[in-house]
Amino acid sequence: MAAAEQGVDAARKEEEEEEEQVVNPWEVSAGKGGIDYDKLVDQFGCQRIDDALVGRIARLTGRPPHCFLRRGLFFAHRDLNELLDLYEKGEKFYLYTGRGPSSEALHLGHLIPFMFTKYLQEAFKVPLVIQLTDDEKFLWKNLTIQESKRLARENAKDIIACGFDIERTFIFSDFSFVGGAFYENMMQVARCVTMNKAIGIFGFNLEDHIGKVSFPPVQAVPSFPSSFPHLFAGKDQLRCLIPCAVDQDPYFRMTRDVAPRIGYQKPSLIESRFFPALQGENTKMSASDANSAIYVTDSAKEIKTKVNKYAFSGGQDSIELHRKLGANLDVDVPIKYLNFFLEDDDELAHIKKEYKEGRMLTGEVKQRLIAVLSEIVARHQRARSQVTEEMVDAFMAVRPLPNMFG
Amino acid sequence: MAAAEQGVDAARKEEEEEEEQVVNPWEVSAGKGGIDYDKLVDQFGCQRIDDALVGRIARLTGRPPHCFLRRGLFFAHRDLNELLDLYEKGEKFYLYTGRGPSSEALHLGHLIPFMFTKYLQEAFKVPLVIQLTDDEKFLWKNLTIQESKRLARENAKDIIACGFDIERTFIFSDFSFVGGAFYENMMQVARCVTMNKAIGIFGFNLEDHIGKVSFPPVQAVPSFPSSFPHLFAGKDQLRCLIPCAVDQDPYFRMTRDVAPRIGYQKPSLIESRFFPALQGENTKMSASDANSAIYVTDSAKEIKTKVNKYAFSGGQDSIELHRKLGANLDVDVPIKYLNFFLEDDDELAHIKKEYKEGRMLTGEVKQRLIAVLSEIVARHQRARSQVTEEMVDAFMAVRPLPNMFG
Repeated sequence: MAAAEQGVDAARKEEEEEEEQVVNPWEVSAGKGGIDYDKLVDQFGCQRIDDALVGRIARLTGRPPHCFLRRGLFFAHRDLNELLDLYEKGEKFYLYTGRGPSSEALHLGHLIPFMFTKYLQEAFKVPLVIQLTDDEKFLWKNLTIQESKRLARENAKDIIACGFDIERTFIFSDFSFVGGAFYENMMQVARCVTMNKAIGIFGFNLEDHIGKVSFPPVQAVPSFPSSFPHLFAGKDQLRCLIPCAVDQDPYFRMTRDVAPRIGYQKPSLIESRFFPALQGENTKMSASDANSAIYVTDSAKEIKTKVNKYAFSGGQDSIELHRKLGANLDVDVPIKYLNFFLEDDDELAHIKKEYKEGRMLTGEVKQRLIAVLSEIVARHQRARSQVTEEMVDAFMAVRPLPNMFG
Repeated sequence: MAAAEQGVDAARKEEEEEEEQVVNPWEVSAGKGGIDYDKLVDQFGCQRIDDALVGRIARLTGRPPHCFLRRGLFFAHRDLNELLDLYEKGEKFYLYTGRGPSSEALHLGHLIPFMFTKYLQEAFKVPLVIQLTDDEKFLWKNLTIQESKRLARENAKDIIACGFDIERTFIFSDFSFVGGAFYENMMQVARCVTMNKAIGIFGFNLEDHIGKVSFPPVQAVPSFPSSFPHLFAGKDQLRCLIPCAVDQDPYFRMTRDVAPRIGYQKPSLIESRFFPALQGENTKMSASDANSAIYVTDSAKEIKTKVNKYAFSGGQDSIELHRKLGANLDVDVPIKYLNFFLEDDDELAHIKKEYKEGRMLTGEVKQRLIAVLSEIVARHQRARSQVTEEMVDAFMAVRPLPNMFG
């Protein structure tokens, strides 16, 4: 059966690969047995998010924690407790997240940080800056500047479609915004990081172009409120919270290392696991393989085909065996996807139990997933179709946000 | 005698040093016997300026060549003939020069490129952009951003005092101007230069900070007219001529290498010798040693003292010997300075002859030099005292220059 064959292939591939997992902004390769998030936490030196912290966020915001949080999908942090201590005393913060606009259509994995950031913005009632690193994508991919800028704008539409509050949100692309105080901060950061250090953190080599080694300060400085004088003039010590996938941690390790040396606060972080490819956790969602991910532009039919055909199953080879042994939820992609997107905790628990104990079949789980994803994608498409060029201009206008802390 | 002792010291120093001369934007150290400019031309791969070229410039501009040109002080070029071919056919160009604002007061050596650029601007009737690399000085020196920006503005006043035409001149500091099309061009250049290449050209090492390796594109891109959309919109192929001291050549070797790969014209260059320190050609004018140079802020009395006390003499130890052997003009600093600043060719030739043949004494030559320098410095001080903050704002305003080719 397809699933079983895939399993054998995956196992073989794993043995051929180095056991060591590699996680940085440009490469995520799992060791044997998938990404070891515990190891990552130790390796990066960040902290685990535990039930107490989730409960604290719920209490402080007066609303149930987002399912990404209560299900451990955002699993690690840096100095989040310190930020919440200050919040509890009435000191606000701002959110910073971003995206490298390398492709026309976003896939579901790309939406995760934005969905979560929207929840944080609403729950804490705080301003948000969203960086589109069109310069980064120009530097890393074989794109023209025009194309990078066009993709940034197209991606901005998908981001806006996630429902951000225009009264609290500033979206900018580097090509349109770098300069002034932002550039000054870039130089401040650059002066504090040696080439050896950058090579150590990011794995650059000397045949890489100098654009790559110049880039980390660009992603660092939105962590500092003084980079946005139109928003945070006179609030140089305002705290920043960065929701992101854990592969972005190296940028902010560097940022946190530099911050106190240039008189700024270290940003806090809240970091997510990776959203797996349809083929499983040890493969990558790839822009060049449309069948590795569900895109926000996919039709209901495409979603159905992709899930049925490519979503790696933890079910058994035959119905008889499945009824007897049940599914292996640890490797089952439909369950992993439902874990992200099926909001009803009771239903999710029920499906997991039934599937694990062999009473539910892969086909049935996939059918539920198809319904869930189709609804999310259709909703996104409806929202995106409402986003006009004028709205993009409005979100990206360099302007004060008078009610951002209101 | 002082001069002779200095001579012995200098000779000893030379022997201790490596013979190999080093010339790059941050280090100029002469080999034995002073800077070997012929060797530099071969090493850098630029071309010599010969009498034919000087004559051609005189013909094309309808005025006598500047004394810096006819005396070989601007001695090397890249593609100047090509630029003049086009100029002859009616195609204009623009000038680009700059300064790293690292100190409050400029010395006479700093004025050389500006004096020469002013001549070129008037003679060819072309626009000029002047870059103040306050970011570079922030990165290399232990300055705050505020101090770098302040020095840029102070230096702008000295530059304006050289007499540039506000109708044809745009002065900018990087901290105030980097962004937009300028930043886009920086990224275009950065993508074309590997770290190995940058290390080869500029001598960076891996313990240098990443700000240094990010900087060369900043100095490169004023060579491209599209970096100044307010001046040169729709003129992407306009040629650029860069007057500078020869130590800046590495930046523009890199720029010329990259230009055709990103669809731009290579800038042409016209390059000067170094203006020597009072102590001679093998020593450096140093900001930390006020006695190594004449500053534009020096009083007549200071000029007199410095020249009399510190200007290295090629004269003989005793008057008797001097009358008999004459002066060694090759090492004599007063003669070198007069070569730059005494405009009257006949008088200069006369002094050289009399001095060389022992009829004129060092003291007499120095007296003439003191008069020449005092007049230049006094004139500069008068001009600078007329430069208001409003004039600085006007020169630095991002604005079109409607009559720049007029």
